[in-house]
Amino acid sequence: MIRAEQRGPILRLTLQNPPANALSLALMEFLQSELDAVRSDETIRVIVIAADGKLFSAGHDLKQMTSHRGDADHGKAYFEDVFAVCSRLMQSIVDHPKPVIAEVDGLAAAAGCQLVASCDLAFASERSRFAVNGLDIGLFCTTPAVALTRIVNRKQAMEMLLTGDAIDAVTAKEIGLLNRVVPTESLTSVVTECASLIATKSALAVKLGKAAVQKQSAMGLAEAYQHASRTMVENMLSHDAAEGIAAFLDKRKPTEPSNDRPGETRDIPD
Amino acid sequence: MIRAEQRGPILRLTLQNPPANALSLALMEFLQSELDAVRSDETIRVIVIAADGKLFSAGHDLKQMTSHRGDADHGKAYFEDVFAVCSRLMQSIVDHPKPVIAEVDGLAAAAGCQLVASCDLAFASERSRFAVNGLDIGLFCTTPAVALTRIVNRKQAMEMLLTGDAIDAVTAKEIGLLNRVVPTESLTSVVTECASLIATKSALAVKLGKAAVQKQSAMGLAEAYQHASRTMVENMLSHDAAEGIAAFLDKRKPTEPSNDRPGETRDIPD
Amino acid sequence: MIRAEQRGPILRLTLQNPPANALSLALMEFLQSELDAVRSDETIRVIVIAADGKLFSAGHDLKQMTSHRGDADHGKAYFEDVFAVCSRLMQSIVDHPKPVIAEVDGLAAAAGCQLVASCDLAFASERSRFAVNGLDIGLFCTTPAVALTRIVNRKQAMEMLLTGDAIDAVTAKEIGLLNRVVPTESLTSVVTECASLIATKSALAVKLGKAAVQKQSAMGLAEAYQHASRTMVENMLSHDAAEGIAAFLDKRKPTEPSNDRPGETRDIPD
Repeated sequence: MIRAEQRGPILRLTLQNPPANALSLALMEFLQSELDAVRSDETIRVIVIAADGKLFSAGHDLKQMTSHRGDADHGKAYFEDVFAVCSRLMQSIVDHPKPVIAEVDGLAAAAGCQLVASCDLAFASERSRFAVNGLDIGLFCTTPAVALTRIVNRKQAMEMLLTGDAIDAVTAKEIGLLNRVVPTESLTSVVTECASLIATKSALAVKLGKAAVQKQSAMGLAEAYQHASRTMVENMLSHDAAEGIAAFLDKRKPTEPSNDRPGETRDIPD
Repeated sequence: MIRAEQRGPILRLTLQNPPANALSLALMEFLQSELDAVRSDETIRVIVIAADGKLFSAGHDLKQMTSHRGDADHGKAYFEDVFAVCSRLMQSIVDHPKPVIAEVDGLAAAAGCQLVASCDLAFASERSRFAVNGLDIGLFCTTPAVALTRIVNRKQAMEMLLTGDAIDAVTAKEIGLLNRVVPTESLTSVVTECASLIATKSALAVKLGKAAVQKQSAMGLAEAYQHASRTMVENMLSHDAAEGIAAFLDKRKPTEPSNDRPGETRDIPD
Repeated sequence: MIRAEQRGPILRLTLQNPPANALSLALMEFLQSELDAVRSDETIRVIVIAADGKLFSAGHDLKQMTSHRGDADHGKAYFEDVFAVCSRLMQSIVDHPKPVIAEVDGLAAAAGCQLVASCDLAFASERSRFAVNGLDIGLFCTTPAVALTRIVNRKQAMEMLLTGDAIDAVTAKEIGLLNRVVPTESLTSVVTECASLIATKSALAVKLGKAAVQKQSAMGLAEAYQHASRTMVENMLSHDAAEGIAAFLDKRKPTEPSNDRPGETRDIPD
């Protein structure tokens, strides 16, 4: 259901739920447990979320959800569970101590688009497309909108939400949903190159900084600066900053230990 | 002062206050009552706000406001009334259960620009221009800025507010004030096509989703996901989602009743 | 360390701290005192922050900070002081009653980029570059991120923060960090022209409006409109709006006193 491969400091999680990589309850729980498992794993510096097949992810598993309409409560408890699990998963990406990069090749729709919006960075192939098209089947993409409206202009988000129309990768970059659009054949190498670059940085500084960026975003300016300043002082007092700055001033390379490790692949059975 | 025309599920409200479609107190009150009147009208799915003449709207009625400077309080109570009515109107668009689309052909200035910014979607002709130019007459466009800064980048908004310079439609699209720029001759047909598409969707899902998108935007991430998840569950339990999803899985058209009705025009006397 | 020149209504503050215009504690304190000194100075309408040399500013003074690692507390108190002074400075720009324009020619990095992000408007030469590259030396640019994430899309900000890569001026404009990119040789004249235009406007309206735009941005929509409406009424009751609107309706020039004064240069010794 998810293939987990560690190559050096990069953990690559590949969705494998054909044909549409639907975010079934099981897939979301697997993804959650993979993310949870590596929070404190110092050998991993960056996480990449990719997908096998022509679709990145078409969103929730509608067949599975529909099968619960026969429950005594018409599926209410099950639906609550699905959206709670999904919301927790998306927040786990935002709150994860390691940067998470979406590598998109194909359609990312509904909760699949939400997943892309929730990652710290997102790269996509030229042929990729993005939609929050739940309204086409009577279900407004409200939870995807939480992620989408936090990075995309309100009018552009509303157009996607109300029309259900898919946008191409170039448009997705223009409106801020993507960092870069690249040819399909170079997508993985571009993502790996970016992940490898980030993996050379101080894991502590990344962790402190990512958490503070997220936390301060909900604060007023004065409170945000107080919080960020405390983080800066903590970061300055760390070995990594002391050594990094000293090396910079001495015009030498910092003596940080390398995090390169031999590759390792764990397959989670379907 | 406003021409109201219902064509099938689309209510088209056309500003008719020559020469500048100034948002006089009377015009704003008419627009407010039109919006209020159709909140629960199931025959209407989408609202379009357009304008007759070369100007979409030049903003508040300065002549009217100035005439109250002779009041005992130098106009204070009147000004308070004008901005309260205007602020309520703009929020009524944001909070309206139906999507509201601005169709702009010509200059939208000051509160006219605020009206465009407040709509869910905005389309404009190539010759349209946008300004928040109150500062040119000593009055910073502070209330328009409330709407503008919620969709436009701070630096770009401040440039418009501080210089008073008008921007063209292409620039307005680039900074997020517009969804699309089209030739003047196709403006109404493009807007009508988009409105007609949205009108085919579940009115309940649109209403639930639009309200949740607005409400969650002022919340932190965790609270936003809780609110959005509740909305998703409510939407999932509705007939429209049950039927929409079932039809999708069965590869058939959903059996939703059509909302097409014969056209009807109501003219509000000047 | 800073050259202060008043030309008519424009105060031009030029960073002079070669080779990198580092924001040393002394430089920040000078800049703070310059900003504080002119808050109520009616002869000054607009402030421009520029820099001598090839770098706009490379950020904090790392040599100075490192020299405090030998303190009994390993520099903790000093670092706290630096970030408190810096955060106060940046907020003083945001809260300043006069518009502040950044004129950037060269690299603006880390806190230097934060300074650009904090100004109301920013213009840059084509050769300018922007980075928040602290992570390259083990120090995530958390305080710069407070300013950056308030004007730049989250994914684009995170890419700059995580990779440390510099972006060129055209990209900086695309993502909202700049208002305009111009050839180096016309940079100062373009900035001066814009500042001169703003200087012709009502200082009171600018002051009221700028403060309200900032204040309402942290509020929900209803509260924001209440605050903005109060500001509009206060502005309407001022002489500047009464005269500006009356002149507009009479199709004549307003009779506001000119604020042009002879040029004056004050040099702050290094």
